[in-house]
Amino acid sequence: MDTYLQAATSIARQAGGIMRDYFQLGVPITLKADKTPVTQADLEINCLVVSMLKQAFPGHAVIGEEESRDVAGARFTWVCDPIDGTSPYAHGIPTNIFALALVDDGEPVVGVAYDPHTDRLFHAVKRQGAFMNGQPIHVNGGDRLKGVSIGTSGAFDGLVRRSSLIKDLMDQHARTFNVHSGIYEGMMVAAGQFGGWIFTGKNAHDVAVVKIMVEEAGGVVTDLHGENQRYD
Amino acid sequence: MDTYLQAATSIARQAGGIMRDYFQLGVPITLKADKTPVTQADLEINCLVVSMLKQAFPGHAVIGEEESRDVAGARFTWVCDPIDGTSPYAHGIPTNIFALALVDDGEPVVGVAYDPHTDRLFHAVKRQGAFMNGQPIHVNGGDRLKGVSIGTSGAFDGLVRRSSLIKDLMDQHARTFNVHSGIYEGMMVAAGQFGGWIFTGKNAHDVAVVKIMVEEAGGVVTDLHGENQRYD
Repeated sequence: MDTYLQAATSIARQAGGIMRDYFQLGVPITLKADKTPVTQADLEINCLVVSMLKQAFPGHAVIGEEESRDVAGARFTWVCDPIDGTSPYAHGIPTNIFALALVDDGEPVVGVAYDPHTDRLFHAVKRQGAFMNGQPIHVNGGDRLKGVSIGTSGAFDGLVRRSSLIKDLMDQHARTFNVHSGIYEGMMVAAGQFGGWIFTGKNAHDVAVVKIMVEEAGGVVTDLHGENQRYD
Repeated sequence: MDTYLQAATSIARQAGGIMRDYFQLGVPITLKADKTPVTQADLEINCLVVSMLKQAFPGHAVIGEEESRDVAGARFTWVCDPIDGTSPYAHGIPTNIFALALVDDGEPVVGVAYDPHTDRLFHAVKRQGAFMNGQPIHVNGGDRLKGVSIGTSGAFDGLVRRSSLIKDLMDQHARTFNVHSGIYEGMMVAAGQFGGWIFTGKNAHDVAVVKIMVEEAGGVVTDLHGENQRYD
């Protein structure tokens, strides 16, 4: 796993450099077919990730938010979000993060996330713990929700709004906190800053990096019914 | 006004240095009587502001979030928020800002806000325009709400929730955006990134800096009924 972690870390730092280079007020965006925004930085980073992984691990597949690489029968799949939080990125607001995870037969085994604005590199390897800039991180171990921040970037689709989940959290005096980047909030959970995190999306692979980071930091990641999921 | 602007800018940069010095994941907070959080950085910055202004302008009053200075019959009042966005600051999330405004008989005439995490200094002087790092800034001049981000950090008290304002914005396909710092969002309006901003609070002086910055950037700031307010 060390080789994979080293490759992921090196890619993350290069991606962060691209994020910093383009970061300013009012970065131009294009709307994709699904109406989500994409910037030149997203495209360049995704291209970098696919080409570096192809060279290093030609037998591995890659799922990127903007560009992917199929490899028939691949056991290993890399999952990348070039910039999670493109919307704050495009406004010049520094809550956004690069994310990359390696998934082995459906299960994340290496995860790296890099916030270039505060120079924070998060990494986790299966059964080896979670770290920020080399220091171990741990989830908030409290068992009460009162006063605890819960990340809700990804939680405002109809399904969650119609459910009683948000209302239940409010009733227990939890505080919702939305930084408009689900993976950023996931790292805040792994680092013990947020008590929990809700994300709704079509693809579990979008949050593979959160799965391994939070679990290696001592937490739990499941679907809304408490079940495990595949992350490829 | 130049003397006032120079003093405010110098104080802002020193305050930003203190914000950077203490910034990390999990900054310790204390809850004040009104249940809002305060950190050591808030207290040190407020102390710095009061002592520097007392020395430079002994006849001016100061209203600080943590510490103030009364001067009987003062025409000029400085209004300071040492760290707007203490909650993200305490979580180690870099959406927070130092703010200082000079109010002349109820009307803001100088405003400075400094975001030390991205090194952005905003300033405005009455009838001289608004600037970010010395470059003129302007509000978003569009007249449609569709697709426009509206800052709502300060908008989730009962009054606004019960009003039809948020629903009206949603009906017109505006997008609410909450960075958990009202003044930060106000600067995003002045810089043309957000199309508008809603803030509810007891004290208009809390947002004096937004008033002058947005108006000098070509926008409008009023109460919920469209009326002007006093900012001291």
